[in-house]
Amino acid sequence: MLAVALSLYVEVELVPAARLSLHSEGEGADCVADERHLAARVASAVCGHDRFAITVRSEIPLGRGLGSSAALAVATAAAAGAIDPFAVAVGFEGHAENAAASVRGGLVSAALLDTGPIARSLPLDPALVFVVLVPERHLPTEEARVALETEVALADAVFNLSRMGLLVAGLADRSLLVAAAADDRLHQSQRGPLFPEASELLVQLLKAGALVSCWSGAGPSLLGICDGPTMAAHVRDAGEAALEAVGVPGEALVLAPDLAGLVVEH
Amino acid sequence: MLAVALSLYVEVELVPAARLSLHSEGEGADCVADERHLAARVASAVCGHDRFAITVRSEIPLGRGLGSSAALAVATAAAAGAIDPFAVAVGFEGHAENAAASVRGGLVSAALLDTGPIARSLPLDPALVFVVLVPERHLPTEEARVALETEVALADAVFNLSRMGLLVAGLADRSLLVAAAADDRLHQSQRGPLFPEASELLVQLLKAGALVSCWSGAGPSLLGICDGPTMAAHVRDAGEAALEAVGVPGEALVLAPDLAGLVVEH
Repeated sequence: MLAVALSLYVEVELVPAARLSLHSEGEGADCVADERHLAARVASAVCGHDRFAITVRSEIPLGRGLGSSAALAVATAAAAGAIDPFAVAVGFEGHAENAAASVRGGLVSAALLDTGPIARSLPLDPALVFVVLVPERHLPTEEARVALETEVALADAVFNLSRMGLLVAGLADRSLLVAAAADDRLHQSQRGPLFPEASELLVQLLKAGALVSCWSGAGPSLLGICDGPTMAAHVRDAGEAALEAVGVPGEALVLAPDLAGLVVEH
Repeated sequence: MLAVALSLYVEVELVPAARLSLHSEGEGADCVADERHLAARVASAVCGHDRFAITVRSEIPLGRGLGSSAALAVATAAAAGAIDPFAVAVGFEGHAENAAASVRGGLVSAALLDTGPIARSLPLDPALVFVVLVPERHLPTEEARVALETEVALADAVFNLSRMGLLVAGLADRSLLVAAAADDRLHQSQRGPLFPEASELLVQLLKAGALVSCWSGAGPSLLGICDGPTMAAHVRDAGEAALEAVGVPGEALVLAPDLAGLVVEH
């Protein structure tokens, strides 16, 4: 599976304290701020105790298919001094490709092997800019997962494998990127009933000039991958208009890929 | 889906004649040499008549998962003057990735879109050398296809998608290539009963030093992808010994990737 790191960030600060406390700002500030919080659980596991004060500042909307949990788990594991924040995050959160993108930046592929999670970076054309439609509605990953059949047609699996090759080639060189590279038969249509307006929004992103459009993870966020910032600004405006036209509150963001990945400051 | 062009060739010569004749040398020389032969069918379709004499010289064993039909269809379409030998070959033969590798050379991904077949080249580390075990037994593609379930677990589809990302990264840079990148849950074990010795042979290729080992297409040929010609020669010898040890007649070849693809001479 593929993931790309985009320029929305979560910052985690961890300082020794007499007992656990957690302060959260920005996205997710309304989450429960006790030992059940993902950051508290990750930090406790890494440190082997919970005598610390955690501050989380996040720009990443939660429950929208934007990988906020993986990013938070990576940042917290690193703040807590984990030797391998990627492995820790995958152990807690499961989405190896999201954790890999958070650690490495750029475009990555990842998998969970018997020996642990593994990630590889893939080339990403530096001119590509991402438009992200972020509906205000939540689509909990768990609910989005339940929408999927546990069995799929072999032909559909082959369909997606074929498109993945086209997508990897096109993301490396935008002149080779075709809209069909993001065609999918394994999850988007299955999740459609959870977000009936999605297919129309994906069409509008393409019509406005995005090279490809697709769901971001399990949704409901949608991606339009664009050639350069001028086209991206245009697609963003069109995406905003499309959200309004179909009556879905939300915002349209222009995000460049993040190439730095995890940054640790002492 | 991915395919790589290896240095086994088929040559097709086509000259005007009063009526159809077909002469075949090398691999496949025992096939029926009339209008039912794939080369005759492809050439007739491209030319709109069958007043030609075809000569086919092939080094590619038939019915072994080595893509001989796609290569023959591509070469014949080109010899007959087709503007797009790739599209013609896919129309006749169906394996878009095999036809794409035959036309482009190197590592390719391909898919069949509503608008026609499409192919993209992917980077291939020039140090990679391929060992190919070619059992003498045939495994007709049709039979190998029937062995597959039409439904698969979504988790297995995701499993293969994840490995494909690792494989593409590793084929571009052999230092990143891990054996697990070729792990498969969609066809190899399902086809195992057709070729029970395959799993042991794949293990032996890895033990001898291949970076990854896998079925070639629908089998029964098996691939060991090696770092450089010295290692490949060693793996070839080990593969030959392994074929003998499991009692499967066949040969082990060392093949470099072909980077030229289709060559047309007038």
